[in-house]
Amino acid sequence: MTAAPAIDPEKLDKLAQVAVRVGLQLAPGQDLIITAPVVALPLVRAITEHAYKAGAGLVTAFFSDEEMTLARYRHAPDLSFDRAAGWLYEGMGKAFGSNTARLAIAGDNPLLLSSEDPDKVSRANRALSAAYKPALEKIVNFETNWNIVSYPNPSWARQVFPGEPEEVAVRRLADAIFAASRVDRDDPVAAWEEHNAALRARTQWLNGMRFSALRYSGPGTDLTIGLADGHEWHGGASKAQNGITCNPNIPTEEVFTTPHRLRVEGTVSSTKPLSHNGTLIDDISVRFEGGRIVEAKASRGEAVLNKVLDTDEGARRLGEVALVPHSSPISKSGLLFFNTLFDENAASHIALGQCYTKCFLDGASLTPEQIDAQGGNKSLIHIDWMIGSDRIDIDGIAADGAIVPVMRSGEWATPVA
Amino acid sequence: MTAAPAIDPEKLDKLAQVAVRVGLQLAPGQDLIITAPVVALPLVRAITEHAYKAGAGLVTAFFSDEEMTLARYRHAPDLSFDRAAGWLYEGMGKAFGSNTARLAIAGDNPLLLSSEDPDKVSRANRALSAAYKPALEKIVNFETNWNIVSYPNPSWARQVFPGEPEEVAVRRLADAIFAASRVDRDDPVAAWEEHNAALRARTQWLNGMRFSALRYSGPGTDLTIGLADGHEWHGGASKAQNGITCNPNIPTEEVFTTPHRLRVEGTVSSTKPLSHNGTLIDDISVRFEGGRIVEAKASRGEAVLNKVLDTDEGARRLGEVALVPHSSPISKSGLLFFNTLFDENAASHIALGQCYTKCFLDGASLTPEQIDAQGGNKSLIHIDWMIGSDRIDIDGIAADGAIVPVMRSGEWATPVA
Ligand SMILES: [Zn+2]
Ligand SMILES: [Zn+2]
Ligand SMILES: [Zn+2]
Ligand SMILES: [Zn+2]
Repeated sequence: MTAAPAIDPEKLDKLAQVAVRVGLQLAPGQDLIITAPVVALPLVRAITEHAYKAGAGLVTAFFSDEEMTLARYRHAPDLSFDRAAGWLYEGMGKAFGSNTARLAIAGDNPLLLSSEDPDKVSRANRALSAAYKPALEKIVNFETNWNIVSYPNPSWARQVFPGEPEEVAVRRLADAIFAASRVDRDDPVAAWEEHNAALRARTQWLNGMRFSALRYSGPGTDLTIGLADGHEWHGGASKAQNGITCNPNIPTEEVFTTPHRLRVEGTVSSTKPLSHNGTLIDDISVRFEGGRIVEAKASRGEAVLNKVLDTDEGARRLGEVALVPHSSPISKSGLLFFNTLFDENAASHIALGQCYTKCFLDGASLTPEQIDAQGGNKSLIHIDWMIGSDRIDIDGIAADGAIVPVMRSGEWATPVA
Repeated sequence: MTAAPAIDPEKLDKLAQVAVRVGLQLAPGQDLIITAPVVALPLVRAITEHAYKAGAGLVTAFFSDEEMTLARYRHAPDLSFDRAAGWLYEGMGKAFGSNTARLAIAGDNPLLLSSEDPDKVSRANRALSAAYKPALEKIVNFETNWNIVSYPNPSWARQVFPGEPEEVAVRRLADAIFAASRVDRDDPVAAWEEHNAALRARTQWLNGMRFSALRYSGPGTDLTIGLADGHEWHGGASKAQNGITCNPNIPTEEVFTTPHRLRVEGTVSSTKPLSHNGTLIDDISVRFEGGRIVEAKASRGEAVLNKVLDTDEGARRLGEVALVPHSSPISKSGLLFFNTLFDENAASHIALGQCYTKCFLDGASLTPEQIDAQGGNKSLIHIDWMIGSDRIDIDGIAADGAIVPVMRSGEWATPVA
């Protein structure tokens, strides 16, 4: 008799199928680039198999390793922290621009870098962001189909379930990922079709309302977010510029659009900790004037937060506003994942930095100047943080000034078809 | 009590030190690109640590995985086998051209692809060779410091020690790698200095002799190899164009130079099997006329051999000739490693395909046209195969026609300082 494996191999195989068939909707002949922590090798292998079965041309994987990352912080000379592999991301950008799909496996230890020198962490992130730009732009502009799924990395599992032995923690995190990714259903692909339809009904309602702004009120929050001119709400499956409809995030519960970078006023408080590149930032409270953050506080990670805000001019302005009901399955799990992919889908959120071109009506045909004129934000960063809870009300403000309840106590105020 | 690990962690750490300090002689501030099978992760981590301690700027690793390679052969559509990640190798070429060092960890299963469709194997190799060209050229032209070391991959160990349980096979292969790489010595770095000095004395003798040709005789072999005009012998440590003296191969026992691509006549038989990209090619016998292979036979893998020869015009001509005494430590181990890095250092050998620019006097300053005029060969491939044994005699033919014994029964005929 052998012990049951910590991670159910059948569900892991279903997760790989969902990543390829729902997440990417990989088309025959497409190449695929996978990035993953090296511990996620079993999932990468399963995804590779399903990708080739779906007709992939070439699957290329890049693995990161937490030990190698730590070796850099512990042994590298100072000059290392301004370096990044620009040649690699330039090449990836070219590949994404030539119809190569992109799959990222998330699951890094959210606290990996929490005891390293914040100045080195911030310099290294800044160098990476600058180098990564040619690749990120293709993703942000949705030039190709892409997807993120998660793997229960032991170092991540230990953060989510600190009291448990590692094997138990990994099994519980695996089960939480499987549930949130709907691979615990009999027919995960059908379950995703149904979920995508519900998200589509909600974005159609919001797009029909054409709100000029959203107003948030709750503990520590009194905020008005103007929406960009010609904004468009998205959620769930969405069509990339290469013509492929994909589900970029697995899981996903949000509907989201582009705020106006000059029209955000008031104060907002985070409702969950933000895990940013290995550092936890908690109890964030910021004040906006004319769309710009003029004051930022946090009970933990305030120095990292302020470094993030100083990345560039756009880092102090909003690039995304997203609505998630408090009753979403991820929120109901009661877990704090310390991982944006999950935590942002447990609560309404906003993002600092770069906006999504696709969140404009006819966005793909707009010039950078037009996007700027309509209120779209530009930055090297895009960082989501959670501002929703069951104590937050949200109203929509119509063009004529009429006020429409959007959420009450964290739930949709108006049912849709 | 726990079982001793199959691979001695102290010797593995010493191997990492030798790779960085002897193999690469990594200079402070240099970036490093590592390629490795994913099972070699413990060695990659140790190398990363020693590289950063030596002042590396950024270490970037790319891992391959045998399961992912097999998934391609078993599930990918036909079009996959003409694909390669050109964008990646273009980028690597740029990095090598900008002073990034390169470390490859060898150790793949030599028979991985032996039961796959030879046509697919050959098409995939051809596509990879073409895509890899911008990176390979920088290595072949020695523009940056580079090094190959080995890791005892279990699938490789099972081939070398077919009768042993996997753990024993891995331990025995690890010990063989450690011995051949001189990390079983008290001071491996000093042992390499001594070995490099002996190889330098031998290349100085050969460069002083300025032979116009070498003549090989033995069972199944009666071959004359003309040497390129202005050829230069190299061996052991050597200076790259970025000014860094490195040891490209760990282990290395050979001294080698460039043959004249038009002046090879006669017949030669292989003395060890050649493991080429997952296929074994055994009992090779080829006949040269005017430097070109006009007839090629093999008892095993003949189809793959003929596909290799058809890669391009230069694939039928020689790009390297190398001398290794039969008493070299690797030969004395009595093992067949099914891996060129080891087996080529157990026997004198020749290589089909691309020549090394550095094996010409003042090679770095020669134009491609000059190299061509002096007899250097050009090809997408460079494949070494073994033609030496204790039954082979080699004579040098001087410019005036005088005949000088070089090797007798596989050993140097003339001692040097
Ligand atoms: Zn979002
Ligand atoms: Zn976002
Ligand atoms: Zn050689
Ligand atoms: Zn060679």
